[in-house]
Amino acid sequence: MAESMKGLKRSHRCGELSAANVGENVTIMGWVQKNRNKGGLVFVDVRDRSGLIQVVFEEGSTDAALIEKAAKLRAEYVVAIVGKVAKRSGAVNENLSTGDIEVIPSELRVLSEAETPPFPIEENSKTKEEIRLKYRYLDLRRPDMQKNLLLRSRVATLTRQFLAEEGFLEIETPILGKSTPEGARDYLVPSRVHPGNFYGLPQSPQLFKQLLMCSGCDRYFQIAKCFRDEDLRADRQPEFTQIDMELSFVDVDDVIDVNERLLAKLFKDVLDVEVPLPIPRMTWQEAMDRYGSDKPDTRFGMELTDVTEVVKDSEFVVFKGAIENGGTVRGINAKGQGEMPRKKIDKLVSFAKDYGAKGLAYIAIQNDGTVKSSFAKFMTEEEMQALIAAMGGESGDLLLFAADKNKVVWDVLGNLRLELAKQMDLLRKDEYKFLWITEFPLLEWSEEQNRYVAMHHPFTMPMEEDLPYLESEPGRVRAKAYDITLNGNEIGGGSVRIFQDDVQERMFAALGFSKEEAYDRFGFLLDAFKYGVPPHAGLAYGLDRMVMLMAKEDSIRDVIAFPKVKDASCLMTEAPNVVDEKQLEELGLALGEGEEESAE
Amino acid sequence: MAESMKGLKRSHRCGELSAANVGENVTIMGWVQKNRNKGGLVFVDVRDRSGLIQVVFEEGSTDAALIEKAAKLRAEYVVAIVGKVAKRSGAVNENLSTGDIEVIPSELRVLSEAETPPFPIEENSKTKEEIRLKYRYLDLRRPDMQKNLLLRSRVATLTRQFLAEEGFLEIETPILGKSTPEGARDYLVPSRVHPGNFYGLPQSPQLFKQLLMCSGCDRYFQIAKCFRDEDLRADRQPEFTQIDMELSFVDVDDVIDVNERLLAKLFKDVLDVEVPLPIPRMTWQEAMDRYGSDKPDTRFGMELTDVTEVVKDSEFVVFKGAIENGGTVRGINAKGQGEMPRKKIDKLVSFAKDYGAKGLAYIAIQNDGTVKSSFAKFMTEEEMQALIAAMGGESGDLLLFAADKNKVVWDVLGNLRLELAKQMDLLRKDEYKFLWITEFPLLEWSEEQNRYVAMHHPFTMPMEEDLPYLESEPGRVRAKAYDITLNGNEIGGGSVRIFQDDVQERMFAALGFSKEEAYDRFGFLLDAFKYGVPPHAGLAYGLDRMVMLMAKEDSIRDVIAFPKVKDASCLMTEAPNVVDEKQLEELGLALGEGEEESAE
Repeated sequence: MAESMKGLKRSHRCGELSAANVGENVTIMGWVQKNRNKGGLVFVDVRDRSGLIQVVFEEGSTDAALIEKAAKLRAEYVVAIVGKVAKRSGAVNENLSTGDIEVIPSELRVLSEAETPPFPIEENSKTKEEIRLKYRYLDLRRPDMQKNLLLRSRVATLTRQFLAEEGFLEIETPILGKSTPEGARDYLVPSRVHPGNFYGLPQSPQLFKQLLMCSGCDRYFQIAKCFRDEDLRADRQPEFTQIDMELSFVDVDDVIDVNERLLAKLFKDVLDVEVPLPIPRMTWQEAMDRYGSDKPDTRFGMELTDVTEVVKDSEFVVFKGAIENGGTVRGINAKGQGEMPRKKIDKLVSFAKDYGAKGLAYIAIQNDGTVKSSFAKFMTEEEMQALIAAMGGESGDLLLFAADKNKVVWDVLGNLRLELAKQMDLLRKDEYKFLWITEFPLLEWSEEQNRYVAMHHPFTMPMEEDLPYLESEPGRVRAKAYDITLNGNEIGGGSVRIFQDDVQERMFAALGFSKEEAYDRFGFLLDAFKYGVPPHAGLAYGLDRMVMLMAKEDSIRDVIAFPKVKDASCLMTEAPNVVDEKQLEELGLALGEGEEESAE
Repeated sequence: MAESMKGLKRSHRCGELSAANVGENVTIMGWVQKNRNKGGLVFVDVRDRSGLIQVVFEEGSTDAALIEKAAKLRAEYVVAIVGKVAKRSGAVNENLSTGDIEVIPSELRVLSEAETPPFPIEENSKTKEEIRLKYRYLDLRRPDMQKNLLLRSRVATLTRQFLAEEGFLEIETPILGKSTPEGARDYLVPSRVHPGNFYGLPQSPQLFKQLLMCSGCDRYFQIAKCFRDEDLRADRQPEFTQIDMELSFVDVDDVIDVNERLLAKLFKDVLDVEVPLPIPRMTWQEAMDRYGSDKPDTRFGMELTDVTEVVKDSEFVVFKGAIENGGTVRGINAKGQGEMPRKKIDKLVSFAKDYGAKGLAYIAIQNDGTVKSSFAKFMTEEEMQALIAAMGGESGDLLLFAADKNKVVWDVLGNLRLELAKQMDLLRKDEYKFLWITEFPLLEWSEEQNRYVAMHHPFTMPMEEDLPYLESEPGRVRAKAYDITLNGNEIGGGSVRIFQDDVQERMFAALGFSKEEAYDRFGFLLDAFKYGVPPHAGLAYGLDRMVMLMAKEDSIRDVIAFPKVKDASCLMTEAPNVVDEKQLEELGLALGEGEEESAE
């Protein structure tokens, strides 16, 4: 029973009306949010992207047939209303930008009727996420989701505008690319023209953007879709979006400069938050030592203290053993948590074990200064006092210690620090602390692959002063790599790239690739490097995560219009799905054993 | 032997320098374009994205070691040069923006050496396209390709800026979507988590953008990657880019209005071309009748004339037979081509046959007024004179006629018209003639599928006055669809969408889909339509083709950074390629018979 909008033209969005429009004839169109029938009066709230407006159908000022029609409106009907804006006769609604006005209608058309939606269209929905995602088109009607979509769009627009003004060219790189076995798993696309061959969906436009620098494009950017066929976590999606950029004839400082100004602009224009520049920088080593993390949340302190020297002569076997094995003992001081109940401390111990600790030693200094400790009996009184002093322990403090290889100690205490901050309510969502992390290790040892792997990627430039150690001590070589972190999240990262073919070959050798393997994978890049390459560097942001933090959401799914769930499926469209056998035949493919009844 | 750029910072791009900089110390970085050694002087042209600058190494003003170093530079070396800008001592080069200045160097660093490239880096390359594409990173260094990349980037930036100002939100829709069998062939992506299931890469974001309208997003746009696994032609790529938009609470005129202003802005800002608004509109029927094409090139006339009435009583069996079979006889008048040699006319006849004509009848009016004709002997003198008069034939004109079903006649004469325009040199690349085509047929009969298929897509709104014929005479129903054409190319198209579930169901029925089939394919859209849908409409441009026309190129490959060739492969990366068997196993896939040695 849809009526046509023929002859009507929307004059305003609902939320665009204000007291300034009083007396004007307007035509609004939108969804019925609420419809109240009160003593012959019908109040209809009409909603669109911009907000709500109240329409009042009243005997005397409105035709009786229209009132009757209005009384039958139900939530989510789509209506067009022609009427006159008036000062609100009833009480002003302070919570609404249009709260002091209303529309007195002269025409009402029902453009579309609606069944009762499976959940109410309102802010802060308590509906299960599965239901929200199945009916995403309804979920996106909710004002908080509308706000998120708007925010994301603003971020994209401002980013593009800023980068265009800075001389970046927006250049699209292919989605149907070449599959490379290095790194995470590619999504593959079978080729019909070349049966048995596959395209790979890009995990990033890395190689293409470096080639664009070889092409003399000077400055490139793209807001690029990237793909990884990995098991999903809360903040992972099979497809995700990067703000991707690359610059020629630059070094670390140039990249940092342009990106600091970009971030400051985004946060100022979108959130009205001032980002003090320059953003602080910290080396990877310092970040690990102080925070146990390469993306430290610096909204609070509770830094790690290395107490190896202090406890190295104690008889406590946990400390002693760790140190003898080349490890360290480090602690954090949870201020004011000294009287934490034993059960809660036990939970922290088990939390620590989840991150690989064999245990967690503690000293709980009661408010009266007495000390409870899991390991006091193995220490002398002097050792205990020295340890407490080293930790800056005072009455009411809880000191927690991990002893193991550095990697484990950092991981345990870094995460424990965050867990305690949550418990102690130290994390404010409206505080934004940026931090650059620099001088990452170039390589890290992979037990699984029994070789060094690139910490960023194989094209990252080693620091010049560490180049001599690339063969002799690969583990100590630092990279010209940098991450930008925000409140304990890595929101972007990049590096200066290798642009010399001899260095690139040494890097591949350090990764254990033979010359043939390297050529097989990245031959076209190595070829390109023969014909004159500018020094270049770049950076990429995870747009989803950045927008999530700006929107103060906990999940990137809340800032993606049509996200997938944990099993990489879309609850709304039910993708992926089964396709016709004919389609597979055309691709020269068969389903493997057990995938279908008729499989050979 | 790469030197480091440490301590140097580029002060200008080469082409940014001008006489205003004379006397300034500058640091430029770029590629050696040319290196001439002339009587102790070394002239080095340095190139970057912005242009060229001449650097002069001269005894007296330059250190001898530096001159020696400069003399060894070869084409495509990457250099950094510090020096002072001076008025050019030699002849001014009028062809160069920096032609009246030069740089007197004080420092030269070779940042990267280069082998001799496989083809010269210069404008209007005559190199075979296969070689250009294999070394695309070098091809893109050529100034004409740099210009194309810049132009495309400008178009994207301006489009986004304009649409953002018009209240459009940029929203990303999924690349990993649901495969639907309707329309062209989808690229498929096997799912690892759900073996035997596949994602489909989107042929357009059509369903998602309609869902966004259901979500109340009001105005959406995206510069979106789309995919079609079809055999390629000159202007087709497996992945292509659309400027995609959708608007709520609008009708045809609103969509046309915003798009006319967008086009006018793009052509003014990028090409300094004024597009007179409003852009003319023509119904599909009129376009076919006058030009034999739904994308007529209106840079020239040579319109079709329907002479069925004039010849209906003649004894010429070709005309007579066509008319008796329900067809028509139409002609075009190639002015001034009356004395075309017989051989050339024969070629036109065979051209017409390629487009399905059984033949091509002609009347060649010589300059002296005598008439040569392939069919004069079947006509009376009066009939011939009436026919010539109907065609506006004068001395020196060539009249060409096709007689067949309308579809064939239009196709033959529409293409013949273009062919003659090329031969007669009537097509100016710097003239831009836009035209809207409206009121397309909703459906067209597919002989292959033995059913009606949607001419645009199944969600296109029929014109209200034709709705009653949707079941009784589907072929006569016109759609609220529109294409925007430029110089004989469709650069964009769209429609008002069906937003009533009853009309949508009738449309699916007209397409021969059962309710189950329709639900299987588009169920989530039909579900969404139950909860209140705004009237909405949209449009999408083929960005590649639009930019190609703006850049005056003949192939979209020249405006895509990394295009694929006819067999959908990339000559540079050699994608698609063979992948590890392990990867296929993880996907639950096997290669079909004959695809590999070990296939079962």
